[in-house]
Amino acid sequence: MGVYQHNGHEQVVHTVQLLDEAYRRGDDQKRIGGTQVDTDSELIRQLVRCVGENSVLHRYEELVSYECDAYTLQKAIPRAVVFPKNTEEVARVVRLLNERKIPFIPRGSGTGLSGGATPTGGEVVISLVRMNQLLQVDLPNRRAVVQPGYINLHLTQAVADQGYYYAPDPSSQQACTIGGNVGENAGGAHCLKYGVTTNHVIGVKLVLPNGEIVELGGLTDTPGYDLVGLIIGSEGTLGIVTEITVRLMKQPESVRTVLALFDEAADASEAVSDIIAAGILPAALEMMDTLAIKAVEKGTFPVGYPEDIGAVLLVEVDGVEAGLDDQIKQIVDVCRKHRVREVRLADSEEERKRWWANRKTAFGAVGTLSPDYLVQDGVIPRSRLPEVLARVAEISRQQRVRIANVFHAGDGNLHPLIMFDSRVPGEEERAVLAGSAILKVCADAGGSITGEHGVGLEKRDEMYYLFTDEEIAVQMAVRDIFNPGGLCNPGKMFPSPARCAEVKRHIKQVSK
Amino acid sequence: MGVYQHNGHEQVVHTVQLLDEAYRRGDDQKRIGGTQVDTDSELIRQLVRCVGENSVLHRYEELVSYECDAYTLQKAIPRAVVFPKNTEEVARVVRLLNERKIPFIPRGSGTGLSGGATPTGGEVVISLVRMNQLLQVDLPNRRAVVQPGYINLHLTQAVADQGYYYAPDPSSQQACTIGGNVGENAGGAHCLKYGVTTNHVIGVKLVLPNGEIVELGGLTDTPGYDLVGLIIGSEGTLGIVTEITVRLMKQPESVRTVLALFDEAADASEAVSDIIAAGILPAALEMMDTLAIKAVEKGTFPVGYPEDIGAVLLVEVDGVEAGLDDQIKQIVDVCRKHRVREVRLADSEEERKRWWANRKTAFGAVGTLSPDYLVQDGVIPRSRLPEVLARVAEISRQQRVRIANVFHAGDGNLHPLIMFDSRVPGEEERAVLAGSAILKVCADAGGSITGEHGVGLEKRDEMYYLFTDEEIAVQMAVRDIFNPGGLCNPGKMFPSPARCAEVKRHIKQVSK
Repeated sequence: MGVYQHNGHEQVVHTVQLLDEAYRRGDDQKRIGGTQVDTDSELIRQLVRCVGENSVLHRYEELVSYECDAYTLQKAIPRAVVFPKNTEEVARVVRLLNERKIPFIPRGSGTGLSGGATPTGGEVVISLVRMNQLLQVDLPNRRAVVQPGYINLHLTQAVADQGYYYAPDPSSQQACTIGGNVGENAGGAHCLKYGVTTNHVIGVKLVLPNGEIVELGGLTDTPGYDLVGLIIGSEGTLGIVTEITVRLMKQPESVRTVLALFDEAADASEAVSDIIAAGILPAALEMMDTLAIKAVEKGTFPVGYPEDIGAVLLVEVDGVEAGLDDQIKQIVDVCRKHRVREVRLADSEEERKRWWANRKTAFGAVGTLSPDYLVQDGVIPRSRLPEVLARVAEISRQQRVRIANVFHAGDGNLHPLIMFDSRVPGEEERAVLAGSAILKVCADAGGSITGEHGVGLEKRDEMYYLFTDEEIAVQMAVRDIFNPGGLCNPGKMFPSPARCAEVKRHIKQVSK
Repeated sequence: MGVYQHNGHEQVVHTVQLLDEAYRRGDDQKRIGGTQVDTDSELIRQLVRCVGENSVLHRYEELVSYECDAYTLQKAIPRAVVFPKNTEEVARVVRLLNERKIPFIPRGSGTGLSGGATPTGGEVVISLVRMNQLLQVDLPNRRAVVQPGYINLHLTQAVADQGYYYAPDPSSQQACTIGGNVGENAGGAHCLKYGVTTNHVIGVKLVLPNGEIVELGGLTDTPGYDLVGLIIGSEGTLGIVTEITVRLMKQPESVRTVLALFDEAADASEAVSDIIAAGILPAALEMMDTLAIKAVEKGTFPVGYPEDIGAVLLVEVDGVEAGLDDQIKQIVDVCRKHRVREVRLADSEEERKRWWANRKTAFGAVGTLSPDYLVQDGVIPRSRLPEVLARVAEISRQQRVRIANVFHAGDGNLHPLIMFDSRVPGEEERAVLAGSAILKVCADAGGSITGEHGVGLEKRDEMYYLFTDEEIAVQMAVRDIFNPGGLCNPGKMFPSPARCAEVKRHIKQVSK
């Protein structure tokens, strides 16, 4: 084996491939993993010169942690992981990797759900977690500047005493970075009223895939093309964001939160549509179905939902105190019209927080029901919720996998949790097929294959549900301007042309 | 002269050039204008085949109306004007012009203020005014689909009875088209709270510069790059939008409007900053200075402002009825802290409308003070309003031109109205120089050279105030993907490379 040889960066690739193969074969990982891979190779030395001695990982057992993000169905060992501390170090690493024609991947906390930070083989992972500073808070202009590794929730915590907060609130907000949020255009429960990441980021500093540093956007709308908007949600394929200027929001004066328990999920989803149609724009409007409720009740923060209910809505309104009771009354009226069994109003901030904690544990709690599960992320016009839920139930039966539904109902953003047991042959494949079929239903209903998790590695083929070859080609041409060598986060977002025919057969299959 | 010859499209160019020269020389326009230009040329016949007999203009006197938009300092006669009725006709025209390598310009109502729809010589103008249908209203999902020639205000009128409206409200909203709004990413007085066009458009159908038709975006956020965001504000350089899907907003339950009259403009601008800092986000927060007030009081809707006041703020809050009085009280308190002379609360919808009508006549009313004027459009952080206003006054003195200030103060979006008399040698040049110098001040204050009017022909050189050569090159590379032949709205947005050195000298000059 070539594992112990050290003769230049091709060797690293070879070594990593061998390690990766060995790992996949289930070889003795101690023996392999304990080995210091390629420590004195030219590449590692060069990386160390870029970022310093303690900022490069290259041992197998260190690299394994970076083989995927929170989407775990595809994995590959990276070649190395570097931890730059500032924009200049990022640029230095990128310039080096350009010279060496070695691909690279930006990575935040690795909480992404579509494999956006997952290597495809031999990339250098550029981890931004040490660039975790809050650089500036400018309350008169309601903005802040953060480094990409700054944790989402920390920003709200930093400005809460002054009465402000940062609006996008993914369920992973205690762990995920704002840089990662920019990459995926992350959403969250409160994005119904306040918008997703792209509505809250006004400028970025970016290391282009060739190592040059540019600043886009800033305090105000800038002339020329909206390249900030283009960067947000580009999944790390257009460069590496190293500074982010975000809007801060004033905390609402008051908040009211209600739980509405329905016997039938269809009634709950009709209520969702009618609440919005009544002219109320809740801060959040979340829904969970029976199976999801069963999961969260087994989780860390049970609420005490009756076991036999069909769906629960968690509805929050915020704003000026004086208007809220009236909005709550209207919401309750709509729920009653749709045969709600019970409505509860949070009677304290503690109760409200508990309800939210319960809701936010949903993804994890599904683990109590099933050894493995997939989280999907489709979007539909909210008026079509009832019929799409019926189709999801049908797909669940067809593919013989259980599906729990948790969703940002107000946005029409579904998160079907598709359960399977990877030890049972064929189950994982059926789960993947079910996910893809659900996305097809969403696309056909006039929706989208992702609301907030991104395309990543996971949904490249499903891009065809929404786009023609021509439309994908336009997008890839945009990518190629920024990223002409394809070194920056390769293999993400776009189906490979070679897979086109195969993918189209797959579409036929899930459309049956 | 070649005017009367008809032998192919080169002749048309030649003819148009001759006509244009003659026009500029001030030749007898009747003699030239009365001539039917090139009616049987190959090009005109081909255009007629694309869009039909009554949908092509080619006589000089018809073309003259299309020599510029509402930015009148640069003009050129187009080669022809066509009026397609649907997407397919647009695509047909574009494909024809590609074959013939003839440049073209999309145009709405021609109310743009930066020359975005102005020919640079020999283009075919593709007027979208006959594509003026409201195609779909979907209230449950709060969206509408319109053709690009649909008038902005008509959309609000169409859904007002059901309690909805379309938020972006440029002062020209009675005349401007939503297609034009998309091109320029138009704003308006109420964009402080609700955002500009890009926050309200979720999808477009687009004829690419090569004539292919693509659909981008749609009901929900779509995966891949945010190409809808890229198209919005791209000033017609990336293709021709032929259908637009927009968000509709629910009308607020109530509205309160106050006028605050200040002795000193500096006090008013400090009040602006403090109102926002107090956590109030007004629906609109407008400011006019003495000279602007003098103008509007001579306009169609005088309010009766005292002659000696230094500035007026027009502040509007909206939302749930119950919370508004409290917000108004806070606003009045802030104004008092800044030595307001008088505060008036609109006591009827009629009075409120009258105040707004007065404000919206500001641009036109300046014509009562000066034979000519330029409207500029800069943006600054609102906390820097007082110092920037002082700089504007200084520039006014330096260049010996009077400047009235009307602005969306809450957004920090200035509209200096620079008055001049084109009959006085050198005055127009000094006015242009003053405008450019103001934009430099805005850029240096951390702002932008355009808030809502676009770059167009007018501010191409000022792009250097904000962007490096590298940043402009990235933007041009994006344009070239969509518009590789450069036929689609040529000469807009970007400085020509040849002018680079000259422009940099100019920057030095206005920076003195």
